[in-house]
Amino acid sequence: MTGNLNSITDVPGVKVGHVTLEEHFEDGESVCTGVTAIFPHTGNVFEQKVPAAHFVLNGFGKTVGLIQVDELGVIESPIMLTNTFSVGAVLEGTLTYMLEENEKIADTTSSLNIVVGECNDSHLNSMRLMKVRPEHAIQALKKADVGPMEQGAVGAGKGMICYGMKGGIGSSSRIVQTEGHSYTVGVLTLTNFGKVEECNINEWLVEQGAEKMASNPDSEANEIKPDGSVIIVVATDAPVNDRQLKRLAKRAAIGLGRTGTHIHNGSGDLIIAFSNAYTVSHESDQITETYELLRDDCAVMSDLFQAVIEATEEAVYQSLLHAKTTMGRKKRVVENWPL
Amino acid sequence: MTGNLNSITDVPGVKVGHVTLEEHFEDGESVCTGVTAIFPHTGNVFEQKVPAAHFVLNGFGKTVGLIQVDELGVIESPIMLTNTFSVGAVLEGTLTYMLEENEKIADTTSSLNIVVGECNDSHLNSMRLMKVRPEHAIQALKKADVGPMEQGAVGAGKGMICYGMKGGIGSSSRIVQTEGHSYTVGVLTLTNFGKVEECNINEWLVEQGAEKMASNPDSEANEIKPDGSVIIVVATDAPVNDRQLKRLAKRAAIGLGRTGTHIHNGSGDLIIAFSNAYTVSHESDQITETYELLRDDCAVMSDLFQAVIEATEEAVYQSLLHAKTTMGRKKRVVENWPL
Amino acid sequence: MTGNLNSITDVPGVKVGHVTLEEHFEDGESVCTGVTAIFPHTGNVFEQKVPAAHFVLNGFGKTVGLIQVDELGVIESPIMLTNTFSVGAVLEGTLTYMLEENEKIADTTSSLNIVVGECNDSHLNSMRLMKVRPEHAIQALKKADVGPMEQGAVGAGKGMICYGMKGGIGSSSRIVQTEGHSYTVGVLTLTNFGKVEECNINEWLVEQGAEKMASNPDSEANEIKPDGSVIIVVATDAPVNDRQLKRLAKRAAIGLGRTGTHIHNGSGDLIIAFSNAYTVSHESDQITETYELLRDDCAVMSDLFQAVIEATEEAVYQSLLHAKTTMGRKKRVVENWPL
Amino acid sequence: MTGNLNSITDVPGVKVGHVTLEEHFEDGESVCTGVTAIFPHTGNVFEQKVPAAHFVLNGFGKTVGLIQVDELGVIESPIMLTNTFSVGAVLEGTLTYMLEENEKIADTTSSLNIVVGECNDSHLNSMRLMKVRPEHAIQALKKADVGPMEQGAVGAGKGMICYGMKGGIGSSSRIVQTEGHSYTVGVLTLTNFGKVEECNINEWLVEQGAEKMASNPDSEANEIKPDGSVIIVVATDAPVNDRQLKRLAKRAAIGLGRTGTHIHNGSGDLIIAFSNAYTVSHESDQITETYELLRDDCAVMSDLFQAVIEATEEAVYQSLLHAKTTMGRKKRVVENWPL
Repeated sequence: MTGNLNSITDVPGVKVGHVTLEEHFEDGESVCTGVTAIFPHTGNVFEQKVPAAHFVLNGFGKTVGLIQVDELGVIESPIMLTNTFSVGAVLEGTLTYMLEENEKIADTTSSLNIVVGECNDSHLNSMRLMKVRPEHAIQALKKADVGPMEQGAVGAGKGMICYGMKGGIGSSSRIVQTEGHSYTVGVLTLTNFGKVEECNINEWLVEQGAEKMASNPDSEANEIKPDGSVIIVVATDAPVNDRQLKRLAKRAAIGLGRTGTHIHNGSGDLIIAFSNAYTVSHESDQITETYELLRDDCAVMSDLFQAVIEATEEAVYQSLLHAKTTMGRKKRVVENWPL
Repeated sequence: MTGNLNSITDVPGVKVGHVTLEEHFEDGESVCTGVTAIFPHTGNVFEQKVPAAHFVLNGFGKTVGLIQVDELGVIESPIMLTNTFSVGAVLEGTLTYMLEENEKIADTTSSLNIVVGECNDSHLNSMRLMKVRPEHAIQALKKADVGPMEQGAVGAGKGMICYGMKGGIGSSSRIVQTEGHSYTVGVLTLTNFGKVEECNINEWLVEQGAEKMASNPDSEANEIKPDGSVIIVVATDAPVNDRQLKRLAKRAAIGLGRTGTHIHNGSGDLIIAFSNAYTVSHESDQITETYELLRDDCAVMSDLFQAVIEATEEAVYQSLLHAKTTMGRKKRVVENWPL
Repeated sequence: MTGNLNSITDVPGVKVGHVTLEEHFEDGESVCTGVTAIFPHTGNVFEQKVPAAHFVLNGFGKTVGLIQVDELGVIESPIMLTNTFSVGAVLEGTLTYMLEENEKIADTTSSLNIVVGECNDSHLNSMRLMKVRPEHAIQALKKADVGPMEQGAVGAGKGMICYGMKGGIGSSSRIVQTEGHSYTVGVLTLTNFGKVEECNINEWLVEQGAEKMASNPDSEANEIKPDGSVIIVVATDAPVNDRQLKRLAKRAAIGLGRTGTHIHNGSGDLIIAFSNAYTVSHESDQITETYELLRDDCAVMSDLFQAVIEATEEAVYQSLLHAKTTMGRKKRVVENWPL
Repeated sequence: MTGNLNSITDVPGVKVGHVTLEEHFEDGESVCTGVTAIFPHTGNVFEQKVPAAHFVLNGFGKTVGLIQVDELGVIESPIMLTNTFSVGAVLEGTLTYMLEENEKIADTTSSLNIVVGECNDSHLNSMRLMKVRPEHAIQALKKADVGPMEQGAVGAGKGMICYGMKGGIGSSSRIVQTEGHSYTVGVLTLTNFGKVEECNINEWLVEQGAEKMASNPDSEANEIKPDGSVIIVVATDAPVNDRQLKRLAKRAAIGLGRTGTHIHNGSGDLIIAFSNAYTVSHESDQITETYELLRDDCAVMSDLFQAVIEATEEAVYQSLLHAKTTMGRKKRVVENWPL
């Protein structure tokens, strides 16, 4: 069962914001890119960190911030998505935003770890121009909100290509129910990978009761596009810790695989998972904290695994279903998946 | 394209041997288990080690020998498969076999690292009786041969249950061709996981041109079986090293996922990959060795990824297609997948 | 500050048991080996698992059981130590012991994960003879007790060589105090590594106020011994989880390094850490559990890091200080460290 | 035996460049920081990548670029060092530099992975001001050269504090010789960690034949400084691959541990290791490459391990021995280690 919005924002408190950049120059260069910000909850993420983990399915990628997530088991910043060559600018913008909100960072307390994921949108976007600036990250952060979210060729997804057709941001959610409890799993994907002939979306659509095309469309982008990547963000309000979130992250890889990709050499396929069921305060008078966590062997844990697989699979497809035909660099056009 | 035998033994030199144990006692206990031995090549594996790697998709498992594989990037013994409680006996038997073949081990040279994978067959097999003895491992090693291999409810697969139906040993292969070269990928799976409703075999059979059942069968085993496991052995004669083999191993996880499993909590889902394109000698007068390896960015590497995914998916299905209805412990019967 | 016993058994509930085997044959072969069992607490370890983690400093080793420790973050069996070629027998013996104590394992509940660490004692012990049998493991388990423990050339340490001199089992502990709380860190090492000229024990003895020899002794074993290994078991009653225990395990590697070793190619240097501050029940009616854990940033955590480093360093030295001159295979003699 | 320069630049082709920033404002804020660039060889690093690996001893750090190093086993950019909040700017500057040098990146070929390491210098540097700009990274890259290199409070080391005294950049090297071959190991450390009472430098100086102080000095910085970090860069011209370089990286952790640190909770202790004995070309007409690599079991490998341990230990001390008393933020003064 999907959540109300069938998106990551079904997980209570999760906020998403996009900034989309588009500009075409006479010399054939284009800005066709953006930034997406994902807040794990509505509060101060530095002061109230969330348990988190990651899994690298294929490490041809430049995502930053994951070493500390591994060591401490928490994320203390929004998760930012952008193009490969804008990681530096988004890092700076997010830092500026967080420093304004937290005066004591690097003054009376320790520093800050920021997570930025990326995909290479250089087929449509003149990535070498580095047109994403720190203020765009700040705008995405300020625009982030709970509730319905835009999908497709928006934010970091503006210039992305998925299975040879227009991809970008896709999202989906699942509700898992057990005696007296209901947990939500939400997945957001930034899709930029695969060849059109690999894609299983038609089979999936039939399963959903939709009519299906005879076959996958032709794709011009298929031939010329370099290997791409995908960033998958898994959110849940189920009470699980970093070790358990790594288990969820691995299931997201399974969900991705179901969409058909061969996980190509040049694809940075990476999953980041967090829970906002509880938070870890930055500082405390106490030397201990108390956590209530799901047991690994309870039935609902396997339900969560299934939910992550299904929501990841659908989030990839939703990126295709939402993204509109987009023109970019050198007047290249990448078409939307025909429906 | 599959190899001639559509099995792991299409990879030149790979040998497989099974010992199957079956005995039913009056008290309702049953021996319904076995041992499978996989040689990476026809020579002395301790003297001529092969590059290898592993990937743990879900670590609820007791496979031994992988720490050293990680450190040194080689396997120096046959890969053995059995039930969870026979790892010790198979370790001893394999050790005995290897010591006989290599007089200098632990005398004038270093010790020996043996790899044993396992799944829990306690639904059909009285695993607590520990009826696999070291000599059974030795027999499996001695019976191992190139050429056609038995599949289904044989060897370590005798008591295994896959998607609620009779599983066990399954294998498949793919040929990857490039200018002037032809590489083989072979996969052998020991399948013991999943619920019947998860299984995608019918969709796969249709793709293969077969007729399909209306739906998956009912399974009594489905309800009572504890979480199972799967061991996937990936073999290739493509010249790749341990780092690249880990990449292949991760693609096998994708192939497994395509068969439908949610990778349950209690399932030890583990992949071991090796190449026999070249070997690493145990000792040498030289301080260096020279290796010719595939480039990560060559097209054939992505073809190998695809081959691993497809052969793993098919190997799981072949275990179902080959395994016959089996009666075991407490007169429990697990039926074959109906065709 | 060390605990009362200056051993791992200062951690309340931790039990240690040794079985030592010695026999000399006319053909020059010798049995000079043993088994050591470490219980994390006095109860049923399968029913009440303890949080645990490991760190592989150098993976030239055959320790079994760590994949599941990584996945689930718990140990559910005693930790067993023996020689490299007796892992199979000790696995079987421990399994037999555990099955007797837990009738439902592999009958009505899941299987069992056993941890066995090993070092290669083949210089003194005719390891190829595989004279450790399952019953020796059972004896070690039954002999295990709280309170003072034997050290030196006993149990699994009987045939081990450390820094070219007689090594084996060594242990040490530290008490860490904070407002209102006192935590114990205990370390047990099985030492079988290094060259005599690397060893820093004399410097350490001087720091302890002891008189020092002018230099390290000569060692005949130094020249002929192959690369060895070390297994380090870290126990604590501080409330930390598996992620935090991995942090402790890495500090044990630092403590080992301080003793002088260069962490040779052929040395399986491996750390296993557990806490018995709380347990995780095998089954439960509840879907959640509640844990009270130390914060990573509390001062006592850094004190625990220091305690692990110091206790590991001292445990290595204690193995040298306790071990007596031992004769083994081919009448080889390895002398005790002169004091 | 150290190399001629006793620095990382003893490894032929390795270039180091520093940009140091210092400015004091009336409001008590200070710029007291910088950038250090390390080239693995004198050619185009994107076109000719070097084998590389990393090891995270304590992951409380924000170093970027290591996911791809793990996956592909190579580094394709200079290694940059700076303060924690300048990672974004240095990423952008390095990207600009590399794009200028490589016109096809993100146009006709794939993107670029840049490695930036960092430590928190906020005790002396007003890190929140983000005064390092992209052009400073470019300057450091352009200034990088072979031959003697500056050490101490320079470049990224300008504001760093080590063992409560002024630290920063330190370097050391060792020559390893074998029949007919001579290999160099060079280590560069950015030191920013530890308490004065932990430091073993006096013992080390005595071993070197120097006179020793009675005890470590007092340190005001000791009390107020937050947990710091250390980045260790290991370079060699020995022919080793990424798997073997990870082994070297772990030995650097041992060398660090010998200097006395307890590897505090808040310290990002991270090692990056590369070899320039051979390079991996970005593109090729061939599908394979041939590599000549050291065997893991050759004696020179253990010598390399020892060299890494010793050079890392000394590099930390050299940072203390070179760094001069420095005044920074809020007129805080951190004194040099007294000699």
